[in-house]
Formats: sequence, structure tokens, C-alpha cells
Amino acid sequence: MRLDHTHDVTAKSWLESANLKDTPFPLQNLPFGVFRRTGTAEGFRGGVALGDQVIDLGALADAAALHGLAVEAARACAKPGLNQFFDMGPTAWRALRHTLFALFKADGRSQSSSQHRSQLDTPGIDVLEKCLVAQSDVEYCVPAQIGDYTDFYTSLDHARNIVKLIRPDAIVSPNFHWIPSAYHGRVSSIGVSGQQIRRPFGQRLKAGSQEPELQACGRLDYELELGIFVGTGNEQGTRIPVESAEDHVFGLCLLNDWSARDIQSWESAPLGPFLAKNFATTLSPWIVTMDALAPYRAPWTRSEGEPQPLPYLSSAGTYESGAMDIQLEVSLETRETRRNGMSPTRLSRTSFRHQYWTVAQMVAHHTIGGCNLRSGDLLGSGTISGPTHGEAGALIELTEAGRAPLKLPNGESRSFLEDGDIVVMTGWCERPGYARIGFGENRGEVTPAKWA
Amino acid sequence: MRLDHTHDVTAKSWLESANLKDTPFPLQNLPFGVFRRTGTAEGFRGGVALGDQVIDLGALADAAALHGLAVEAARACAKPGLNQFFDMGPTAWRALRHTLFALFKADGRSQSSSQHRSQLDTPGIDVLEKCLVAQSDVEYCVPAQIGDYTDFYTSLDHARNIVKLIRPDAIVSPNFHWIPSAYHGRVSSIGVSGQQIRRPFGQRLKAGSQEPELQACGRLDYELELGIFVGTGNEQGTRIPVESAEDHVFGLCLLNDWSARDIQSWESAPLGPFLAKNFATTLSPWIVTMDALAPYRAPWTRSEGEPQPLPYLSSAGTYESGAMDIQLEVSLETRETRRNGMSPTRLSRTSFRHQYWTVAQMVAHHTIGGCNLRSGDLLGSGTISGPTHGEAGALIELTEAGRAPLKLPNGESRSFLEDGDIVVMTGWCERPGYARIGFGENRGEVTPAKWA
Repeated sequence: MRLDHTHDVTAKSWLESANLKDTPFPLQNLPFGVFRRTGTAEGFRGGVALGDQVIDLGALADAAALHGLAVEAARACAKPGLNQFFDMGPTAWRALRHTLFALFKADGRSQSSSQHRSQLDTPGIDVLEKCLVAQSDVEYCVPAQIGDYTDFYTSLDHARNIVKLIRPDAIVSPNFHWIPSAYHGRVSSIGVSGQQIRRPFGQRLKAGSQEPELQACGRLDYELELGIFVGTGNEQGTRIPVESAEDHVFGLCLLNDWSARDIQSWESAPLGPFLAKNFATTLSPWIVTMDALAPYRAPWTRSEGEPQPLPYLSSAGTYESGAMDIQLEVSLETRETRRNGMSPTRLSRTSFRHQYWTVAQMVAHHTIGGCNLRSGDLLGSGTISGPTHGEAGALIELTEAGRAPLKLPNGESRSFLEDGDIVVMTGWCERPGYARIGFGENRGEVTPAKWA
Repeated sequence: MRLDHTHDVTAKSWLESANLKDTPFPLQNLPFGVFRRTGTAEGFRGGVALGDQVIDLGALADAAALHGLAVEAARACAKPGLNQFFDMGPTAWRALRHTLFALFKADGRSQSSSQHRSQLDTPGIDVLEKCLVAQSDVEYCVPAQIGDYTDFYTSLDHARNIVKLIRPDAIVSPNFHWIPSAYHGRVSSIGVSGQQIRRPFGQRLKAGSQEPELQACGRLDYELELGIFVGTGNEQGTRIPVESAEDHVFGLCLLNDWSARDIQSWESAPLGPFLAKNFATTLSPWIVTMDALAPYRAPWTRSEGEPQPLPYLSSAGTYESGAMDIQLEVSLETRETRRNGMSPTRLSRTSFRHQYWTVAQMVAHHTIGGCNLRSGDLLGSGTISGPTHGEAGALIELTEAGRAPLKLPNGESRSFLEDGDIVVMTGWCERPGYARIGFGENRGEVTPAKWA
């Protein structure tokens, strides 16, 4: 994590859409995803978002005069998953980032064709333009072949909110203060923004009843999380020290950990959530790299009375800049709001900087027993809730387990999600003197239960 | 699940080692695995165990006159993982089983070369012999690319044993009687028999202490389980009905769910076990098919006072032959017993027929919320413990959480596993009028903790 010229706020692209005030994808961002032209039989392949375009990395490797590690890296991206590119490590990731920054930066080059500049070892803008595909014309897939997905539980505010709902005098499990808690999640049902989420059936126990019944979920919820893609892994039986843990992380995306609360409360003892979570998980298509996030790091602190972490979770880096100030927002579209052309309703707004445990601590803890991470593995941050009510990352917290339904501006109300609801998550970073970079959108639509 | 001529106990092979009384792999078994010649750079590929040999399926497809679906199936096996073969479904699995049975059956054919029998559409024994590799010359890998690994918790005897250790008056969680409980496990650390298990580090809380410490695991344990390989999956948002669930299962192997009990007790609330389990899981190399297991099915019953399952977990098939009488045994080798050339010590002996939930119920429950299974996914049965003390599937049960150490015949004692211990699991089926078929061995060795 270091600042360099790719974070220079004054840098502009010759691609005008990358310089627009509201784009999530200015030249300083350069997030990675996997795409193809919508509805075609083209192969999915790696690309980088810039303005309203996708840079087709395989096409760029074929067409442009990339050099050395950057061309190898671009070719490694020209596949349906970014695993091989991830596995090349931070030097290769950075080489490609720097090359893309240089190629797409406005440097006084005219729009002249490459013929007029053949003596220069840099492709002309006309060549580069042929490697662009409009984002409006593409569809995305999950950007890596995910070997394992681990979901953490790292927001103390979320943990406190949940515990209070169960019993006002209950306390958060003592191990929360010592362990970046986690459990293994389901890989097969992970999808990308635009995913349709069929309301699941499952067992639930009605209040006062001794016998469960099989029903469509009546308390469907979202959870606002960040997804963390592992870049490089470790051998089984070894650990990743907290000091170097971030070198193993490629980048972050938005993650919706859909949750069936009624199924969850009946099934979860003693092994944790299973069917309540494994029917679907939705990712945003773009992975914002750790390099792009460098300017938005924040100090990480422990409130008074909270224990300091054990040495294997502690390093100077953890304290100075372990947190990340990533702004997050969840909005809801309903069938009604869409029919009436109304704006989505904002449900919450928070920042990732409130998390009790850092990304480096998650990685270090995950491997302390010798568990091997692999390139392309996914970690979920756990629900991100800030300290105030409007910062809660799930409906169960916002509505006090349904007891205090949310009123929407159009008169509708919500205790939990209804069929046709679309949950939209967005994220961005901003800091004076630096660019505003975005994560794009994570959208998922609830469809009715179906006995199929 | 049907009986046919491949279950005929009188059938013998022209390969003599397949007819020996003690072989786990007679002609009636034909289990699948993935192998290569030890220490070579050969590609791993699918094979079938017969006597003391491995039938190299790719070589067989190239060399012998296989027909139709059987040759397609054999070619699909000629890869480092059996996923594509699994995905072909039960008709293809059966076609290959029947073809192998016919080719390797002693049918009065002499050992004459194929030249003398060229008018017949069956390869000569000399051709088939060239497709055999001695098991003593091969090494194995995990037999499929596992997309997701789910570990169940389906032995009521195990659940009762564990609960009693915590508090004598405690009861098994009420949902146990309604749900084939499960949680997602770790794929990356799954290995095959022969795996070395490095003793993990992890947080543990000493009795009476408020603050955990990082230590090498002091209570390392095994868990005796069966691994269940998913043959064909389901689309996300659909379910697999219990009536057809077994058609989606390819077969079973032996599984050791290594467990760090001290780490487990501190970390598991509220999300379930994580680092206590994810450092390693060991599989036996051979998958015994559901077809081979057909003669050893057993009725499945609910004791009086136990609730009948909800309709989605209930079918005539579940009751009549839902259980499987698979004999299981765990033995321990120590550094001392090896040094002195002593036999391993048998720690327990039980049968899979005691499980509270069936394989079909596990599959049906897993998908009732629309979670998609994929070819090659692995389900663990959960620890298999029978009703009596000597049938417990883990040391924590056998030694009452270490309070009653086991005495070994050589004077050693064990509360939990020590460095150098090798846990050996074996399994087999037998029934009057049918062949005795085996699972082979699942061995794993504990190596010392290392701060690496």
C-alpha cells in the first residue's frame, strides 16, 4: 500500500467519460472484472472499467505495444476468471495498473492515428479505442473461479445490534473481542449483480410451537458486506503473517449476503447458519484493487476497555492504516417505486472504517492454523453496520427484527424484503486532494418462492 | 439402487488377486479413484481398483473395444478429476460398471492373445492386462475437483455423547430431530490418504482465564465419517426431491474430519467450527459406488418418541432401505508401535446403519432452499458413532474429553492425538450371499506444530 502517480487527482484520461464528475471509474480507479458482450456467445474475459467503457485486456495485449510483465499480466486476464492473474502477485498487478494508467492518460497526444507516431513505442489512441467495449453493451460473471468462500463477522456494532434483538441484557460472545470470527460459506450459489434471488423454502419454528414446518421464507433480508478477493495464497501448514497479509489481497467488491432470518434462527445451533445463507450471494462485477484504495486508508483503533489483539493479529501497519474509509449505501426499489418511476429509497449509509477487525487481521487469522488460501478465494467482511441506527447493514437491525417496519416515502412499509424488491448497494471512496473512486453497483432482485 | 448380475457372489475375475478372500476390491466392487505411477510426472487420471491392480480407464478406452456410453464414460474418466464422468449420470456410471464387470470376469476365456479371438468383439486378456497398473506402484489424489464441501451432523449417538461431555443434564439441540444439520467446510485443505497433518496453532482459552492465548493445539482429534460424492447436481433455485436424491449420488469414501478440540470450544459460538476443522480433511482414495453398495442397504427406522421426518425428507425408499450397513473401524499407530513392529490398536468399530439421517435426506435437505449442488461436491456424513461406547467415532467421546485416557496394549495412553500418531480408518460391507467389498484405507499422520 503506497501512494504513487496513479493516485494523482489532476491526471485526466483522453477518454472523456473517465473525467466526468460522477463516474465511479476515473483513471485513478481501474477496477478489474470479467465480461462479454451481452447476449453473445463470446467467451467471458477480463477487463478494466474506465469511464463508461471496459478495456478488453486480451485485445489490448494483442493490439498494443505492452511490455514485459504488463503484457503477461494482460494475457493472464484474458480468461473467464482472473485466478491466473491474481496468482502473479502484486508486482504484476502493479505493472498492469501503471501501464493502463500511462496508456489511457491524456498526455497531450492528439487523436492522430498510430501511423503518424510509429516511431514511438506507444500505441496510438485509435489502436486503444479498438480495445474498448461500452459498459452498456456488456454482461458480467463472477470475476474468478472461487475455490472457497469464507464469511467473517467483524462489525461490533452489527454484533451488538443482533444480540440486543434476541435479549436486551445479552452480551456479544466474548470471543468476538479476540477473534475475527468466520464460517465457511457456499461457493456454488454466488452470482453477480443482476442476480435474481428466488425466495427460499425452509424449516421454521413458529413461536410457541414444538414442531417446525416447511414454508417459504417470511423474513428475507440482505446483509451489506464487502467481498475481499485473495490474490496469492499460502501453502497448507503455513501462515500468512499480519505484516504481509495485504500483499496477498487483490481487491474488494460489494457483497450481498442474502439471509433467511426465520430459517436461520431455527437451524443455526450449534453449527451456525447453513440453508439460511447458501441459497444466494451476490457480488458487484468490479474488484477495486488494494492499490486504488491506498489513499483512503484510515487509522485503526480500539475503544477504551476493548482488549488489544494478540501479537499474531497486531502490527504497526494494522494500527496506522489498517482501516479503510469506504463509503457504503443500500437502497431499495420496489415494484411500486419502479411502476411510478420513483427513485430508490435509501435504507442505510455507513463506512467500512468502523469494522472491529481489519482485512489484514482476517487473512492472518484465517491462516494461523495452517489453512491454505488460494488465488481467487473470497472472504466476506461480515455485515457492515456503523455505530448509529441509520448505519445498520441489514433490515433485521433497521426494523428491530420486524417490530418497527420502515416507512417508505410512497407509503409502503417493509419489515423484511418482499417479492419484486431490488436491493442496490453502492460504494465509493473520497478524500480531499484525491479522486472519488467507486465500486459500481450490486443489484439483486427477489423473485417469488416456487416449488420446483 | 437395484441388484443385478454385477452383485453375483459367484462371479470370479480372471485377475486372480481379485478373487482372494481378503481383497477389498473383488469384481463386485469396482470403486473409482484418480492415480498416477508414484513419483512420475504422469498426469493423474481415473482408474478402478480390482484386486491388487488399478484399471487405467483412459488406456482401456484407447486399447479395448468398448462401446457406446461405456467408452465415452471411460474417456471422461481419463482426467485429473472425475467431475465430467460424474456429470454423465447414473446410466453412464452403470454402463461403465457393467462393461468392466464383463471384461474382467472369468468366463472360460483362456489367456490366449487377442489375435486368436479377433473375430470376437471382445478384447483379449493380454490387451486388458496392458491397462493394469499395480496398486503398489501408484499414488492418488483427491478424486474430483470439489466445488463445495458440506459437513453434516447426523449421528444422534455422537450428538448425545458430545452434549453429555459439556453438561450431564444437557440435551441435544431440538432441531437435531428435524434437520439433517450441516455446515460448510473447507475445500482447499482436503487431501488424500497418506496426508500429513501438521498440528495447528490457534487461540484457546484456559480454564479460569479471561484471555485467550495462541498455542499449538493440545487436543487434536479425528472424526470418523463417510464422504459422499455428488454425481449430478441441480440448478440454483430448484430442489432435489428425496425420492430421486440417490440418483444424484455417485458413491462414498472414508473421511477423517480432523478436529482441534481446544480451538473449537473457544471459537465456535455463534458461527460454528472454523479453524478447528479447516486445517485438514483426509479422504480415502477409492469411491465405492452406490451401485456396488446396493446389497448392503438396511431399513431405516425412528425410535419410539422420535418424530417422523417432515414430508420433504420422507419417502417409501427412505424407510425401506434408506440406511447402509457399512462396517467401520478406526485404528491407531504410534511411533512406539511402529518402532516395535506392533499391530495398530483398534480404537473403535461401528456401522453407518445407526445414523439418524440418511444420505437421501441429506441431499434433499441441502437443496430444499434452492442451493445448487454440482458434480464433484463432497458431503461429509458427520461423525459416525454407534450406540455403545466402543462405537464412538472420535477420541473426545472415547476418552470422555480426555478425562479417561485410553490405555494402549504397549502401555502408552492417549487422551488426544500425539505427534507421530497415524490414524487408520477402514470400511467394508458384507452380507450372507453377497461378496465382501471394502473401501480400502484412510491414513493420516500427525506431524509436530511448526511456526512457519
